[in-house]
Amino acid sequence: MTKNNTIRWGILGAGKIARAFATDFQYLQQAELVAVASRSPEKSAQFASAFSIPETCDYAGLYNHPQLDAIYIATPHNFHFEQAAQAMRAGKAVLCEKPVTVHPGQYQQLVALAKQQQVFLMEAMWTYFIPALAEAKNWVTEGRIGELKRIQADFCFPSGPEVERLWNPALAGGSLLDIGIYPIAFANYFMHQKPQRIQASARLSSTGVDECTGIHLEYSGTSANLYSSIVSKGTNTGYLFGSNGYIKLPSFWRSTAIELYNNEDELIDCFSDGRTTRGFHFEMQHVTDCLLQGLSESPVMSFEESMRIQEIMWEVRQQIGLHFPLE
Amino acid sequence: MTKNNTIRWGILGAGKIARAFATDFQYLQQAELVAVASRSPEKSAQFASAFSIPETCDYAGLYNHPQLDAIYIATPHNFHFEQAAQAMRAGKAVLCEKPVTVHPGQYQQLVALAKQQQVFLMEAMWTYFIPALAEAKNWVTEGRIGELKRIQADFCFPSGPEVERLWNPALAGGSLLDIGIYPIAFANYFMHQKPQRIQASARLSSTGVDECTGIHLEYSGTSANLYSSIVSKGTNTGYLFGSNGYIKLPSFWRSTAIELYNNEDELIDCFSDGRTTRGFHFEMQHVTDCLLQGLSESPVMSFEESMRIQEIMWEVRQQIGLHFPLE
Repeated sequence: MTKNNTIRWGILGAGKIARAFATDFQYLQQAELVAVASRSPEKSAQFASAFSIPETCDYAGLYNHPQLDAIYIATPHNFHFEQAAQAMRAGKAVLCEKPVTVHPGQYQQLVALAKQQQVFLMEAMWTYFIPALAEAKNWVTEGRIGELKRIQADFCFPSGPEVERLWNPALAGGSLLDIGIYPIAFANYFMHQKPQRIQASARLSSTGVDECTGIHLEYSGTSANLYSSIVSKGTNTGYLFGSNGYIKLPSFWRSTAIELYNNEDELIDCFSDGRTTRGFHFEMQHVTDCLLQGLSESPVMSFEESMRIQEIMWEVRQQIGLHFPLE
Repeated sequence: MTKNNTIRWGILGAGKIARAFATDFQYLQQAELVAVASRSPEKSAQFASAFSIPETCDYAGLYNHPQLDAIYIATPHNFHFEQAAQAMRAGKAVLCEKPVTVHPGQYQQLVALAKQQQVFLMEAMWTYFIPALAEAKNWVTEGRIGELKRIQADFCFPSGPEVERLWNPALAGGSLLDIGIYPIAFANYFMHQKPQRIQASARLSSTGVDECTGIHLEYSGTSANLYSSIVSKGTNTGYLFGSNGYIKLPSFWRSTAIELYNNEDELIDCFSDGRTTRGFHFEMQHVTDCLLQGLSESPVMSFEESMRIQEIMWEVRQQIGLHFPLE
């Protein structure tokens, strides 16, 4: 599909996350941003103009665009399943915002479709591609904190009702799907296995979404304490506590700089990637590279990784009673 | 019972916590440290010499000491019930290390005995008397963080098997009773009510005690995420997250300095008590003052507060399957 060793991208959606994607796109190698599609032609035109994107179209036009290799889906969660399916049916590679689907059954169908169509599919879990996270994993693997005993991470911010997406059950709103997925992915990134036990507790809003959710995952020898909230701040820091020290990751889902401490709280090492970008381009470059290599599954954000996140979120939702009208 | 408006104290136990108590005793007003008792005469003599305590005796001698008004009990958890009962039966006021008893039924019996004997009884929950905690409560009450939405606190340190007390079920070991009680007390200090829901998860050691325990308490409109571990470090920081800002309390159980932030992470206010002491003397002075006023229950660390902590710990123990052979 590629032309001149360049992957041609389209963006589906023109909201905040799409803008972040388009902003970081300039840092990509062997990639070209060709078209944007949104529900409104005006919004598409504004977006295209802001980011110098040559073409605008409607959703169907994007799926069937003859020059596109890959589509980045940046719409609210409830739309992902149908849009990813349509894009793949049209033969396009798909990078879909997290959570890739609202429940594991949907994701299973998408994976089956990707395999059937022989197209690439990946959840846009950009945290997995942040250099600071890779360095933290190196430190853990090298035994610099001893045995990993506990993962702690929270992602919280206070949001008013004006952010409709967050509070509307019809848009699969709430803290868990929007930001709680990051602490879950953070634990998953270091554990790469199914937790032996999942325990969750939440407070639901008057609109019926979770305004805050606490999750405890128990692995063999390691616990993970995770939390998300849309009614208050949090530390918004990730910690990896080991038997001999710990790693601190401020804004863990997009860390630029991390620190290694011993058990006497002395700073032993630090790492900074020195970037000024948001950091989306790491995952975008990864997908571009996968496509150039002809892969149909990411070796990093694999189907298995996404499915594990889906299954944890589903179990949490059962425990906290978070249901969406679309289900 | 008092002589010259001075409360005469005895210490039962000569371990680490007793040393901290004796060290801070010098800062008390209207209090005198008269005697120490431990299992070994040599240990008592060493202790008495180190802290210039006039008398040593055995346990029975301490209970029945004619000049003592109050006994501070500083032995492992499993001994508290019997020792507190004996001291009260001998007419002595009791300040007993936390947890005051190993289960709520025992505590109920102690309270009944205190009432029957008309003697003072208080759990040595010194965190409740730290000036920085009082200031944090003022800030919350004044609405400086808006509505209190979430309490977060962990207390963790890695401990080897050489600290027998922690790993031995016969001594009511494990993280929960030893340090997990502090995060619970921290939540309780700000909430003063029974949680609507208690959820706990733990990992038990090969010796059968909890090496780490995560607790989620759900109150009306406020959650508390608490954690303790004896296998790794933690942040060892308490946070009070509100709708409009948050308070950070480093080493929350003994905070000397705390910080108030708005939701933009800007430092708005701070408080430091400037002390160089461990901070035990605040609770000791409180008990001394209560006794001088003829009270038989603390208005701060009341029977109700201790009972709530007991009940939370008991429910947590049922959920995590933490049982001691003495039960």
